[in-house]
Amino acid sequence: MKKLINDPRHLVREVLEGLVDATPGLALLDTENVLIRHDDRPAEDRPVAVLSGGGSGHEPGHAGYVGRGMLAGAIAGDVFTSPSVDAVLAAIKATAGPRGAVLIVKNYTGDRLNFGLAAEMATAQGIPTEIVVVADDVALRKTVAPERRRGIAGTVLVHKIAGNAADRGLPVEQVAQFARAAAEAVGTMGVALGACTVPSVGRPGFNLADDEIEIGLGIHGEKGVERVHLQPADVLVDRLVQTILDDKGIAPGQRVVVLVNGLGATPPIELAIVARRALARCREVGLIVERLYSGVYLSALDMPGCSISILPVDDSMLQALDAPTEVRSWSSDGRIAPERRIVAAPATAYATIEHAAGPQARQIQAVALAVAAELAAQENLLADLDSQAGDGDLGASMARGADAIRGLPESAFNTPESACMAIADALRRAIAGSSGPFYAVGLVRAASSLQGKAAAMGQDWSAAFTAAVEAVEQLGGARIGNRTMVDALRPAADTWANELARGTEPLAAFVAAVAAAEAGAEATASMHPSLGRSAYLGDRAIGVKDGGAVAVAIWLKAISDRVSVVR
Amino acid sequence: MKKLINDPRHLVREVLEGLVDATPGLALLDTENVLIRHDDRPAEDRPVAVLSGGGSGHEPGHAGYVGRGMLAGAIAGDVFTSPSVDAVLAAIKATAGPRGAVLIVKNYTGDRLNFGLAAEMATAQGIPTEIVVVADDVALRKTVAPERRRGIAGTVLVHKIAGNAADRGLPVEQVAQFARAAAEAVGTMGVALGACTVPSVGRPGFNLADDEIEIGLGIHGEKGVERVHLQPADVLVDRLVQTILDDKGIAPGQRVVVLVNGLGATPPIELAIVARRALARCREVGLIVERLYSGVYLSALDMPGCSISILPVDDSMLQALDAPTEVRSWSSDGRIAPERRIVAAPATAYATIEHAAGPQARQIQAVALAVAAELAAQENLLADLDSQAGDGDLGASMARGADAIRGLPESAFNTPESACMAIADALRRAIAGSSGPFYAVGLVRAASSLQGKAAAMGQDWSAAFTAAVEAVEQLGGARIGNRTMVDALRPAADTWANELARGTEPLAAFVAAVAAAEAGAEATASMHPSLGRSAYLGDRAIGVKDGGAVAVAIWLKAISDRVSVVR
Repeated sequence: MKKLINDPRHLVREVLEGLVDATPGLALLDTENVLIRHDDRPAEDRPVAVLSGGGSGHEPGHAGYVGRGMLAGAIAGDVFTSPSVDAVLAAIKATAGPRGAVLIVKNYTGDRLNFGLAAEMATAQGIPTEIVVVADDVALRKTVAPERRRGIAGTVLVHKIAGNAADRGLPVEQVAQFARAAAEAVGTMGVALGACTVPSVGRPGFNLADDEIEIGLGIHGEKGVERVHLQPADVLVDRLVQTILDDKGIAPGQRVVVLVNGLGATPPIELAIVARRALARCREVGLIVERLYSGVYLSALDMPGCSISILPVDDSMLQALDAPTEVRSWSSDGRIAPERRIVAAPATAYATIEHAAGPQARQIQAVALAVAAELAAQENLLADLDSQAGDGDLGASMARGADAIRGLPESAFNTPESACMAIADALRRAIAGSSGPFYAVGLVRAASSLQGKAAAMGQDWSAAFTAAVEAVEQLGGARIGNRTMVDALRPAADTWANELARGTEPLAAFVAAVAAAEAGAEATASMHPSLGRSAYLGDRAIGVKDGGAVAVAIWLKAISDRVSVVR
Repeated sequence: MKKLINDPRHLVREVLEGLVDATPGLALLDTENVLIRHDDRPAEDRPVAVLSGGGSGHEPGHAGYVGRGMLAGAIAGDVFTSPSVDAVLAAIKATAGPRGAVLIVKNYTGDRLNFGLAAEMATAQGIPTEIVVVADDVALRKTVAPERRRGIAGTVLVHKIAGNAADRGLPVEQVAQFARAAAEAVGTMGVALGACTVPSVGRPGFNLADDEIEIGLGIHGEKGVERVHLQPADVLVDRLVQTILDDKGIAPGQRVVVLVNGLGATPPIELAIVARRALARCREVGLIVERLYSGVYLSALDMPGCSISILPVDDSMLQALDAPTEVRSWSSDGRIAPERRIVAAPATAYATIEHAAGPQARQIQAVALAVAAELAAQENLLADLDSQAGDGDLGASMARGADAIRGLPESAFNTPESACMAIADALRRAIAGSSGPFYAVGLVRAASSLQGKAAAMGQDWSAAFTAAVEAVEQLGGARIGNRTMVDALRPAADTWANELARGTEPLAAFVAAVAAAEAGAEATASMHPSLGRSAYLGDRAIGVKDGGAVAVAIWLKAISDRVSVVR
């Protein structure tokens, strides 16, 4: 048994301590596992106290529902064990006065007896106390008499409705009457994918095969209706919903609220799938779904699975459910969207703004195509380097990138800015892995730098290149020496800028930048990988150049060669 | 793999559909898995859009945090897979205008690249977009550089703080600055009791032995710091807290908020234990805990385990955390009680009101002792009957009850009312199982009926007896024919009342009642069990009298014999 607990014997007490510590306005009885709403008023002035409880293991039930708007107190038995009569009576006497108390009891023999006797004793001691039994489980509808049905998650709706009635100052009979109306109306059914493990026992209560689930299982692992093979969630939900509707005689046109409840170990992603279908199915069969509550409302320790509760409502019940409460475990107002709102996704491709062809348009295109040709030609070299010190896909990635550049329309190259943006878009779509985003981010940053400039070979392009290298560094967090493409990019950017600043002729400055990139790529062979494609290889990469840095040197050289020819 | 899902390929889309259906004010993009806050304002009028996202499987993160006060939108990748650049860019363009966007990104390579590139593209398209990287996991503090740390549950606190800054109309740089301050300050560490199962893979990502847990595991099942044997929750919590404090340099006297996060399959009862200790431990080491949030905030599919996050706060951060939000997954205001409030449990024993000895006091005591003597004398008979058709403990139970009656002080018998209440109290404490509550509830009801009456053998006692029988019937739901004590009680009550109504002399009427009880007990031998002690035996019980009914006949006869003698 793996559980985040301490000694199982102190488990229930510790849960209550955690709650009282973490929640303003509550108090814990010293000698009983009873959590109450702190109330300074003399007993005579208190409204009817709504109380619930039972065995523990159903958190946040029931102590989690103590607070204004719901319960005045909760009595926690040991795990899956009814609390004692004394504990129940202490809770009544600690919270209620002559206006009385209403005890909401799930239909289990131990709870009925102990809460029932406590109510009798409280009444005899001047606190008129009513019992409301919840028996909402419709699972065994064909084999068990209605009065022997179990009380499960629908109980939480009864807490809310009764708590509100008490808050409104109604007399005890009317609070009980509201609660009984809800208890009689609500139907619940669950499905479990596995058993739960009682901490003091230490092993699951039963076993299900790997592909088996149990429909209609109770919240203590009691027998369900049927063991079946695992089915799609939607099929299961439809079955639960239909069984409830049939049992309760809920007909199309009826207004209802729906409670989707996780049983304790059900991940939120699965509960979301169940809630989606529960709402959709109820609407399909013609119900008017007023509210949908989805979460863990009444668990069964670490049981994986869920239950669905459906409660037909009128205005007064809905108002009671909607009334504000300070109880955190009643965490949603349940309001739903009137319909599914789907909106069109905005276009994300580079804006098709028409750039008129600038003076450099054809030269830019020629350079780009030269780069594409050279990268395609060097596919094997890059693939070889990357297979020795990387994940091996660099050659193919660059070849795909080359194809994407070749596929761009002539108009893409009309201005320096449009060319960078179009190539960025093409590369990020064509190149899987991290190379695509790195090239794209650099090109987008370069495009911003070049915006509106009719850049000649020189200052503008150098500034754009430096901006691009900065963007790559920012995105990846790499610096020189990390054995990445930055080891070629950064020396090239710095050399280019420095040479121009010293007054070197633009083409010569660029040729110097290419040489710096090549030297940088060469140097990666002796670097210890810390980021990027070869990081997972560790020192085994040493002796081989980084493919990403080499690719940078290759396309810079291709640009330099092509620009020399054109001039 | 057992999961409440449909086709894994549609899982993410279905989760988002469920959310948009169930939540007023949201919208879903048609071609991307992006959930946004619906906003009718033109883009120019919108505040800074705070967005988050990443791989799915972390529900309610991140789509569950979309709504006023937190996120403007969330981008959901496939399970544990970064969303595409196009999806992120679509989300930015669907929610943000010229005032910009802030993307909150957990520190994983894919997310950094894709969100980073999308931010670059959005900025180039006129939406200034900032990236805030969260790397709160302190688990690998000794082996991994701070910039390579993972982003985990502390991210949700950053959502809240950034969302509030945007709500307040701050410019994009300041929203980012607030978010970065929170991201840099928060530290988180987790512990997993097992692996999670990616739906498209279908088997757990790793295995832990039955008694093994992993400390510092990431939210995708990435390696932690150490595999250790299962430890008490408090020990684990103390270790997580201390590691965070050490890493972040959080010193005594610092104001902090604490987030206790369930990893997906962690039952609420266990999370409550963790939250209790996290709060207590932080206080023990001298921190001022301003808020405690506990729940499932950022899950890892169906991983069992938890994480703890600690964020040092100042007034402005606290205000941002406290600001109202319509987001349901931010379900608690985090406020805690200033101290643990424990109050004395009210006394539950029968009120020690002094009843002066009434005229019948000694006779009542004599009758009670005669009943006790006879029940003790018949222990073997009752045990025998119950071992044939019941759970076998009836003889011993009744003998214990007899002892308890004998142990009452003389003053207990001073009035009919006090005698019934005192015996009720004695029996419910002495008798385990259901017999104790049944006898007690009848006696309490009888006491109420007798209140203030100096009852003589006759009308008052008969009325009290009938009331008692009704109480027993109500508590257990049994009627004549169910093979329970009611089969003796009900005929006795009716016969006694009828005989008195016909004018029969009181003792003769009671003797008739005893005979009716004996006949009723006799009749149970042929009854099919449906409730009570022999219900689980089915027809195997037939031929044997019900021990509970026989016990009733025994003590009624004892009363009748004793009363006759006294007269």
